Amino acid sequence: MGNFRRVPAGIIGASGYGGVQLVRLLLDHPEVELVYLGGESNAGKSFTDVTLYPHFTGKVNLQIEAVDIEAVAHRCEVVFLSVPNGLACQMAPKLLEKGCKVLDLSADYRFSDLSTYTAWYNKERNDSSTAATAIYGLPELYRDRIAEAQLIGCPGCYPTASLLALSPLLKQGLIIPETAIIDAKSGTSGGGREAKINMLLAEADNSLGAYGVARHRHTPEIEQICSDLAGHEVMIQFTPHLIPMVRGILSTVYAKLRDPGLVRDDLITIFKAFYRNSSWVTICEGGVYPQTKWACGSNNCYIGIEVDRRTGRVIVMSAIDNLIKGQAGQAIQCMNIMMGWDESLGLPKVGFYP
Amino acid sequence: MGNFRRVPAGIIGASGYGGVQLVRLLLDHPEVELVYLGGESNAGKSFTDVTLYPHFTGKVNLQIEAVDIEAVAHRCEVVFLSVPNGLACQMAPKLLEKGCKVLDLSADYRFSDLSTYTAWYNKERNDSSTAATAIYGLPELYRDRIAEAQLIGCPGCYPTASLLALSPLLKQGLIIPETAIIDAKSGTSGGGREAKINMLLAEADNSLGAYGVARHRHTPEIEQICSDLAGHEVMIQFTPHLIPMVRGILSTVYAKLRDPGLVRDDLITIFKAFYRNSSWVTICEGGVYPQTKWACGSNNCYIGIEVDRRTGRVIVMSAIDNLIKGQAGQAIQCMNIMMGWDESLGLPKVGFYP
Amino acid sequence: MGNFRRVPAGIIGASGYGGVQLVRLLLDHPEVELVYLGGESNAGKSFTDVTLYPHFTGKVNLQIEAVDIEAVAHRCEVVFLSVPNGLACQMAPKLLEKGCKVLDLSADYRFSDLSTYTAWYNKERNDSSTAATAIYGLPELYRDRIAEAQLIGCPGCYPTASLLALSPLLKQGLIIPETAIIDAKSGTSGGGREAKINMLLAEADNSLGAYGVARHRHTPEIEQICSDLAGHEVMIQFTPHLIPMVRGILSTVYAKLRDPGLVRDDLITIFKAFYRNSSWVTICEGGVYPQTKWACGSNNCYIGIEVDRRTGRVIVMSAIDNLIKGQAGQAIQCMNIMMGWDESLGLPKVGFYP
Amino acid sequence: MGNFRRVPAGIIGASGYGGVQLVRLLLDHPEVELVYLGGESNAGKSFTDVTLYPHFTGKVNLQIEAVDIEAVAHRCEVVFLSVPNGLACQMAPKLLEKGCKVLDLSADYRFSDLSTYTAWYNKERNDSSTAATAIYGLPELYRDRIAEAQLIGCPGCYPTASLLALSPLLKQGLIIPETAIIDAKSGTSGGGREAKINMLLAEADNSLGAYGVARHRHTPEIEQICSDLAGHEVMIQFTPHLIPMVRGILSTVYAKLRDPGLVRDDLITIFKAFYRNSSWVTICEGGVYPQTKWACGSNNCYIGIEVDRRTGRVIVMSAIDNLIKGQAGQAIQCMNIMMGWDESLGLPKVGFYP
Repeated sequence: MGNFRRVPAGIIGASGYGGVQLVRLLLDHPEVELVYLGGESNAGKSFTDVTLYPHFTGKVNLQIEAVDIEAVAHRCEVVFLSVPNGLACQMAPKLLEKGCKVLDLSADYRFSDLSTYTAWYNKERNDSSTAATAIYGLPELYRDRIAEAQLIGCPGCYPTASLLALSPLLKQGLIIPETAIIDAKSGTSGGGREAKINMLLAEADNSLGAYGVARHRHTPEIEQICSDLAGHEVMIQFTPHLIPMVRGILSTVYAKLRDPGLVRDDLITIFKAFYRNSSWVTICEGGVYPQTKWACGSNNCYIGIEVDRRTGRVIVMSAIDNLIKGQAGQAIQCMNIMMGWDESLGLPKVGFYP
Repeated sequence: MGNFRRVPAGIIGASGYGGVQLVRLLLDHPEVELVYLGGESNAGKSFTDVTLYPHFTGKVNLQIEAVDIEAVAHRCEVVFLSVPNGLACQMAPKLLEKGCKVLDLSADYRFSDLSTYTAWYNKERNDSSTAATAIYGLPELYRDRIAEAQLIGCPGCYPTASLLALSPLLKQGLIIPETAIIDAKSGTSGGGREAKINMLLAEADNSLGAYGVARHRHTPEIEQICSDLAGHEVMIQFTPHLIPMVRGILSTVYAKLRDPGLVRDDLITIFKAFYRNSSWVTICEGGVYPQTKWACGSNNCYIGIEVDRRTGRVIVMSAIDNLIKGQAGQAIQCMNIMMGWDESLGLPKVGFYP
Repeated sequence: MGNFRRVPAGIIGASGYGGVQLVRLLLDHPEVELVYLGGESNAGKSFTDVTLYPHFTGKVNLQIEAVDIEAVAHRCEVVFLSVPNGLACQMAPKLLEKGCKVLDLSADYRFSDLSTYTAWYNKERNDSSTAATAIYGLPELYRDRIAEAQLIGCPGCYPTASLLALSPLLKQGLIIPETAIIDAKSGTSGGGREAKINMLLAEADNSLGAYGVARHRHTPEIEQICSDLAGHEVMIQFTPHLIPMVRGILSTVYAKLRDPGLVRDDLITIFKAFYRNSSWVTICEGGVYPQTKWACGSNNCYIGIEVDRRTGRVIVMSAIDNLIKGQAGQAIQCMNIMMGWDESLGLPKVGFYP
Repeated sequence: MGNFRRVPAGIIGASGYGGVQLVRLLLDHPEVELVYLGGESNAGKSFTDVTLYPHFTGKVNLQIEAVDIEAVAHRCEVVFLSVPNGLACQMAPKLLEKGCKVLDLSADYRFSDLSTYTAWYNKERNDSSTAATAIYGLPELYRDRIAEAQLIGCPGCYPTASLLALSPLLKQGLIIPETAIIDAKSGTSGGGREAKINMLLAEADNSLGAYGVARHRHTPEIEQICSDLAGHEVMIQFTPHLIPMVRGILSTVYAKLRDPGLVRDDLITIFKAFYRNSSWVTICEGGVYPQTKWACGSNNCYIGIEVDRRTGRVIVMSAIDNLIKGQAGQAIQCMNIMMGWDESLGLPKVGFYP
């Protein structure tokens, strides 16, 4: 590959599912060298330790290191933060000061108004000047700002799927915003690699239920972007469900059309135009509805559209891999944009179907 | 048990999933003797044939017989029809004439207005006088009429879950009917025991998608009962999804409350009162949302209720086993009522969790 | 049912999967009244608490109580111990002394030689006189002794499936014992209701692996009974695997036939004769191999037999529901025998297929 | 990438699971251009047709074409045959004659003795001169011969996993060959994309069973290579099981050690040495047993080794992705070798865990 130098990148919080996806994708990234893995509880262990990810044996030769921000900044140009909410905001300011580009996968830098964050996450914040520089990392909406940013607040998995379904409708003023209902369904990997009884296979397999009804923390995140697109404050109904599968999110979005004369083909045309420059979004043909499996393993989002002439509603279905386009893949997509690289660099283009 | 005589019952269409559930439940029913199994394509085979249900070996000793309505009527007092749509309406009139009680699990006798049936099922009907005598077999709503009926049109699986969630709201006028949206999720056994590529484990496992959007045939069935409850014509949004699991349905129902002052506890009280005499319906306490696994293997329906004060909507979640309360169990519940027996006779009271 | 008195029964350790199965089955048992549920960590909670089993709401109205052996003995005639290994042996002696019949689902009373227990379970024992009275609760082998016992050591799930496959072969001297290899596969519910990372759906689903190779604690239990049947010390190869499903065990057993002239039909005949009086064991016809799903939800064991003329081996496959025939159901089967009731009383006869 | 020319490759039989994996992997292959997709039943459809693989929309722009061998040979340098057994042997001779390199994923060219093929596959063959030039495409054993071959008989999925586990033992004479037992477990994608009732999610999920006991067609294939390695005729016990998951094979192999003094560490050392130059095979450390999930999505094979000192047996567990290392990935690995490229080119190095 000649004399070209790879960009050194690190991950703080590498032992979770976000971390392991980042590791896998960055190992394959042609412009990046993964040089640092950080984590507190697993510090000192090899990443391939039997309690972590032994299947990486021979593929990666890094230890999880205790987190020393100074040292991380010294070694890495790009840092991914894959840590619990409330920790990233303690790490990012110093990393930025040292010149790193920072991509935060937690909720800490998703909100333009920190009082919303504090209200929903019960954490006070004292880094408002840093937060003010953060860009919401949904490239299909904010590509230009991401290109100029040093700090990205990467979207949550549900907001990614839901906003990609809603954005063209809101941006073009096609729906009555307050009628929007998002019924979202996620595989259990969204719950992370933590031992919880309700996430055991014996409990979660062959079962299905809603959770966090009317109070899930992704609600204000979705509303913030919807309000931005609509140009006024928008309130959204959002209900997540746990599905007996590992990966994938489907958001089924309902809303009343302003113009009851719009037909399905009109909307498909509008969506295709809206995402014309977004190679990761595929709009399905009429009558085709996306399966989450199509997206799994790739950074793609598949969107299907239906209009119910009887009720005057549009129904949009949006499918992603919650750990790729909903998390690690999208972070890398943002990094590509920040670095001026091709947006698709190092990202899987086709799902691992079946 | 002495000299008491069991009621002879038969099943036409015993080789599908509805059939096999009926066989299992009727074998355990203390007042019924299963004497007849009918079916065309498998006629001549033992029910325990290796291509059918070998696990019944030693438990049932019946052959699938070719369907001779005359003979069926002669041998059975109660007949369950578990056949494709459009066949039951050819069998029921003669069975009724011969004095049998008939429980039809297909769609043929669910509609009070046959033109609705014809519009959605593309089949002409010439048995309107028979159809006029059929009662919709949802005991929680129509217990008294079922008790006097000779012909029951057993509800579809989605309508059962959805109507149990919606009925108290519509009956009491608590919601604006046209805002009602039903986002329903079902295990793949709802698709029947037919070889279809999209139902293969390799395709359907670890995936999730909507189907029949804005045109599923359970829509008019739900609307018919909703209209009956509301006292005027009601149009409902209904979207079914295929979930990677064998059994279970969850209906998540959204609607605008007429009175924004109603709180969750009010609705829980109203639902508990509505289902006071319905032992198969359990209303969850506040903050508890049902899992389909709770219901699986039993005839129960679990209902959870939430109110979103921000949006003024009620969200009702309703979980059943699609093959029991959604099909075979409910048919037996109806039979129990028709026969004057305890409504819970022979039906499984607790799911086989986990 | 008149003036007849139900036998009061209790469960110590009711919050695990063994416990919840016992509760469900005992609620349906016509001769038993469930009067007591004990447990330390959940003491004071209702059994239907949201952290336990809310789907029992309205079906059972018992609290988990702290364990007071004296009080348990006072209130119960029959006590099921569903507690971790090493605890039952502290409870059973006093319960027996007070006259209770005791069925222990742990490993504590499975071994006739306590030094084997100590060697494999790393626990010293000082209740050898009690242990000497315990009978191994596999009714198909030890029905007569169970009938006269006051203390039952209920078999492990793997030993149940494996011994039902091996017993006819060993008892009749048909195989060379030291060639026996048991490759066993279990659903993850066998791991209990404990939060462990490797049992999360996200980890265990769509995966498969062996564990405890050459050192699983069910090995000496299987060997003890095999030795008893063979009439001399027998050493067995036993390898358990974790399968991505909730319930079910399949044991695939390989052994060299002593007489290479034996054909499949001979062995089927021998197995059928061996289990002639065991209604819970079904021998499959030639060429039919059992699926675990056939057994799930029932107390049945399905056994398939094949002979490989090329290699001179017999292959026996045995399928059970690990939580019913492999645990709670078998304990109730033993109780039925101890009480002089029909062995099948209160037990589910057909699986909940599909 | 300059003026370099990609090698044109085609797939006959592109609509099955082998085909779709080949398409995905070849699209990412840096030296190949996928120029042709052939198939009879789907001829004329776009590969992204809704009945085929709509998730490839925008990623591949090829139609399935009716098979015209002459035209295929004209357009492709490399041809993958992913067709039913008995068809490849009708296509390969002409393709070879025209100078194509041919990789056959069916069983047609796996046997050095065609009478074995005819005995197990019930098909007469008249292409023995062609068959005599075919090399068995297991690179870890036959890398050098593959490099010089024009026709590869790619191994079956079970033989791949099983032979990688057995080869070091047989080659070094460490085991008594006739004691070898392979208990293999596969996800249902191995059954292909064909509508079969027993492969429905509703049937195959949450269930488990053996099939083809003592008569599976992969038996002679395994025996052929084992005999080659052992230097004399070897007979193997092989039993496949269907596991409720989409992808992955685990082969659990049992055999008696010749030298009972060998310990686990000795064998680990021997295996590591044997596979020293095989980057796709990873030998697990002592006490670590592979999970199929580790391999899924990658071309890796993970091997775990245990020795049971009590019984004198070695137990080897081998995990692969049945569709990658067990099928499409291995074919591409062979192509890389045939073309003189790096063996790992274009192949996924890390599984898509979780």
